[in-house]
Amino acid sequence: MHSASELKTYPKNNSVKDLEKDSEKDSGKSLGKDSEKDLEKDSGKSLGKDSEKDFEKDSGKSLEKHQEKDDDPHISLYQESLAVHRRLGGVLEVASKVSLETIHDLSVAYTPGVAEPCRKIIKDPELAYLYTLKKNTIAVVTDGSAVLGLGNIGPYAALPVMEGKAIIFKEFAGINAFPICLDTQETEEVIKAVKQLAPVFGGINLEDISAPRCFEIESRLREELDLPVMHDDQHGTAIVVFAGLLNALKIVDKKLNELHIVISGMGAAGVAIFRFLTRAGADPARILACDSKGLVYKGRKNGMNPVKEEIARLTNSEKMKGGLENALPGADLFIGVSVGGVVSEEMVRSMAKDAIVMAMANPVPEIMPDAAKRAGARIIATGRSDFPNQLNNCLSFPGVFKGALSTCARKITPEMEMAAAHALAGVVTLSELSEDYIIPDPLDRRVVPAVSKAVAGASLESCVARKSHEDQL
Amino acid sequence: MHSASELKTYPKNNSVKDLEKDSEKDSGKSLGKDSEKDLEKDSGKSLGKDSEKDFEKDSGKSLEKHQEKDDDPHISLYQESLAVHRRLGGVLEVASKVSLETIHDLSVAYTPGVAEPCRKIIKDPELAYLYTLKKNTIAVVTDGSAVLGLGNIGPYAALPVMEGKAIIFKEFAGINAFPICLDTQETEEVIKAVKQLAPVFGGINLEDISAPRCFEIESRLREELDLPVMHDDQHGTAIVVFAGLLNALKIVDKKLNELHIVISGMGAAGVAIFRFLTRAGADPARILACDSKGLVYKGRKNGMNPVKEEIARLTNSEKMKGGLENALPGADLFIGVSVGGVVSEEMVRSMAKDAIVMAMANPVPEIMPDAAKRAGARIIATGRSDFPNQLNNCLSFPGVFKGALSTCARKITPEMEMAAAHALAGVVTLSELSEDYIIPDPLDRRVVPAVSKAVAGASLESCVARKSHEDQL
Repeated sequence: MHSASELKTYPKNNSVKDLEKDSEKDSGKSLGKDSEKDLEKDSGKSLGKDSEKDFEKDSGKSLEKHQEKDDDPHISLYQESLAVHRRLGGVLEVASKVSLETIHDLSVAYTPGVAEPCRKIIKDPELAYLYTLKKNTIAVVTDGSAVLGLGNIGPYAALPVMEGKAIIFKEFAGINAFPICLDTQETEEVIKAVKQLAPVFGGINLEDISAPRCFEIESRLREELDLPVMHDDQHGTAIVVFAGLLNALKIVDKKLNELHIVISGMGAAGVAIFRFLTRAGADPARILACDSKGLVYKGRKNGMNPVKEEIARLTNSEKMKGGLENALPGADLFIGVSVGGVVSEEMVRSMAKDAIVMAMANPVPEIMPDAAKRAGARIIATGRSDFPNQLNNCLSFPGVFKGALSTCARKITPEMEMAAAHALAGVVTLSELSEDYIIPDPLDRRVVPAVSKAVAGASLESCVARKSHEDQL
Repeated sequence: MHSASELKTYPKNNSVKDLEKDSEKDSGKSLGKDSEKDLEKDSGKSLGKDSEKDFEKDSGKSLEKHQEKDDDPHISLYQESLAVHRRLGGVLEVASKVSLETIHDLSVAYTPGVAEPCRKIIKDPELAYLYTLKKNTIAVVTDGSAVLGLGNIGPYAALPVMEGKAIIFKEFAGINAFPICLDTQETEEVIKAVKQLAPVFGGINLEDISAPRCFEIESRLREELDLPVMHDDQHGTAIVVFAGLLNALKIVDKKLNELHIVISGMGAAGVAIFRFLTRAGADPARILACDSKGLVYKGRKNGMNPVKEEIARLTNSEKMKGGLENALPGADLFIGVSVGGVVSEEMVRSMAKDAIVMAMANPVPEIMPDAAKRAGARIIATGRSDFPNQLNNCLSFPGVFKGALSTCARKITPEMEMAAAHALAGVVTLSELSEDYIIPDPLDRRVVPAVSKAVAGASLESCVARKSHEDQL
C-alpha cells in the first residue's frame, strides 16, 4: 500500500536538476530530446508490465503476455501529452468570475460585502447552493489505488488523470470539477476525508479506486452523504455498456432476459456491469463471470471477495470451471473489462449467432475488432477511438452529474442511472443505428443535454431533488 | 461546535421554495425585493450581535455596545454582494487550459496520453510540480470556526469568504486557489485532513480558524508537511502590520526596540503580531497585551491559554491589571485587532508624542481616524478602504505564496515572512511616504512582484527551495 508515510519520504532532492531545467519559456523546446530519452526508458515497457500485473490481480484470464512494446498504438500520444502537461503545468486551472480592479470590486466579492451571503447560509446551509460554487462543483476523488491500466500508483501520479477528468466535466458539461488525490488508502479514512470535504461540493465523482474497496467506499458515501456520489469506474462504465447493449439488441433482435452473457473481469467495472444488467432484467442464471482465476463459482477458494461471493451465489449454478474457452460457447454477449488479448478467434466462433463482443481492455482489447469480425461476431465495440463503437465513460459522467446538479440532487439513484443509459442509447436514431454505430461518438453534442435531462427528470421522480430543474436545463 | 452530524441534519426542505424562485435568468431581477426583506430581517442586527459575541470570546476589551445597526457603513455593499453571489452562483470557477474538440485533444489531455506524465510522477512524486497544477495551486482551508467578524459559522457559511480569498489569489498573483471548507473542528482531524489533501497542492493557506486551535494546527502542519503553510490571519496580518510600522517609524523617527507597544486582541492576529514584532527586535518588556478580560499578566486566571501564558511570561513584569485605559498612557504604538470603539480619545491623548494608532477592527475600528487625529495621534491606520493607510492582508498573502510557489518551496520560514514585510514596506518610496501613506494601496501593482521576489530569494537563502526561481519571476 501507498501510505502517507511512504509518500512523505519520497526522495527530496533527486529531481531538483529536472526542475531547474524547466521553465515556462523553454519547456516546449526541450521536449524533443527529453521525450526521446523518456520513451526509451519507460513508456512502452512499463505499460505492458503494469497492465499484466493488474490483470493478475483482479480481472480477465491469465494467458500469455500479450502486451509487448510494439503492441502499444499510443506511443506518439504519450510524447505529446507529456509535452502539453509540462508546458502548461497541468491542464486545469481555477478562475475568477469577477474582476478585481477597484476597491469596490474587492468589497463586493470579498469583505465586507461577502458577510451577507455568509449570514444567509448561517441560517440555512442549503443556501450554499444559491450563493456559492457548490451549486455547480464536484470533487473528482481518488486515492490512486487503481489508475487507468497503471495500477496502484498513489495520489501524486494519479493527479494528471484527475485533471484530465476534471476538464472533461468542464468542457463537456460546464461543471466545475476539482481533483482531490488523497494521501491515504485506508477505506475508513477515504470515507471520512470525503465527508469532511463535502461542504464545498454539489457532488462526488469517485475515480480509480481499487476493487473491492471501491464498493464499500461508494456505498457508504452514498448512504452517509446528502450528495450525489458516483464511482465512475463502476456506474459510469455500466451506463455506457448498457446503452450500447440496448441499441445492439435492437439490431440482433434478442431480448435482454434471454441473453447468455459472459463478463470477463471482476474489478469495479465488471461487478457494476453485472449488477446493472441484472437490475435491468438480465437473467443471472444465464450470466457467467470470469476473473484472472477463471470462472467464478460458488465454493471457489481462490481470489474471492464478498462481492464475488455474491455473484457466485447468483450465477453458474452448474459450477462450471476453467476459463473463457469454457464460458463462451453459446454466449450471445461477451463483455470484457479485463486485459488485452485474452479472447481468441476460436472462442468467438463458439459463440451464438449474431454474437455481440464488447472488448474494452485498453489499449489492447480482449480481441481486436478485425479478428472478432472474422470469427463471426455481428457487433463489436471497444474502448478505443480508432474503431467503431467506442464505449467511453465520458458519454455518461458529464451528463449524469449535470442532471444531478441541476436539481441539487441529494443522491444518485438506480433510476437516475437507468434513465441515463436509456437516454444515451436514444441519442442514436433508428436511421443512424447500425452494427458500426450502436453508441454516439464521445464528442456528440447531443449526448450531455439528453443524459442530463433524463437524469434530472429521474431525480425528481426518485424524490431526491432539492429543486425543480425546469429553469436550468 | 459545528460538528459533521449537526450539518448533516440541517433542515432538508425549508429552502426548496427559495431555491425554486431562483434561476440564472431571474435572480438579478428579483434582487431588489428579496434584498430589502433580507436586510430587514438580519443584516445590520446580526452583525452587531455576532461581533459582540466574538469580542466577548477572544479579543479587545469589554465596553458598551458600540456596533448598533446604524454604525455599519456597509449595508449597501451587503446588498450588492448578495446579488452578485446569487447571480453568478459563487465567484469562483474551475477552467480548462485546453479545448477538447477532437478525439485527438481528448487523447492528449486524458487517456491514453495522460499515462505518460503519470509514469514520470510514479518514479518521482516531486515531478508533480512539473506536470500538474500542483505547481501553481494552493488550498484555502478553513473549518469555519472564526470567520470575519461573524464567529463560528461553520464550513458551509464560510464558503463565500473562501471563494473571495481564492479569487484574490488568482486576480492579484495568478495563483490557482481552491476553497476547502472542512466539516470538522477537531484539531487533530483538521491536521489530518490537510495532510491527506496535500498531493494536489503546492501550498496551504489556512484561513479563519479560531485561536488558540489555529496555533497548534499551523505549527503542526508546518512541521509535518513538506509544503509552505501559512495561517493568513496570523502571519498575513503580521506581515502587513510590520510593513506599515517600518514605514511609520521612518516618519516618527523612533526605534523598534525602544517602542512602547500596546496590542489589543489576543486572537490569531494579536498573538502573531506579538511574535513577529519581538522576532524583529521589539522589546517584549515594553509590550502590553490586552484581551477581552483586560491586560494579560502572569498569574491571571481568567480566559488564559498556553499561548497567552507564554506572552504573560514575557511581558508586563509589573503585572499591571485593568484595561486599555491603564495600558495606553505613554505608549508609542497601539495595535488593535479586537473590536470597534474600545479606544477613546482620552486614551489616545494619554499616549506618547508622535503616537501611532493601528486600529484594525472591522467594520468599525477601535477608534475612528478623525477621533484619533483630534486626540493627537500622528499616524493612523485602519482596516478600512475609506480611510488612508488601509492595513489589508491582501497586501501580503498573494505575494508570499507566489514567491513560495515560484521556487516550489518546502516551507515558509520566518526569514521569508520578514523579507515579505520589508519588501512590502519598500514599495512605498521615500518621496511617497507620509503620515497618510505608510502602506501601499491594496490594488498597487508593484506589491505582488516585490513581495514575491523577496520571498523567493529568502526561500533560497533559507534552503527550502526545490528549484531556482530566476526563470519564473
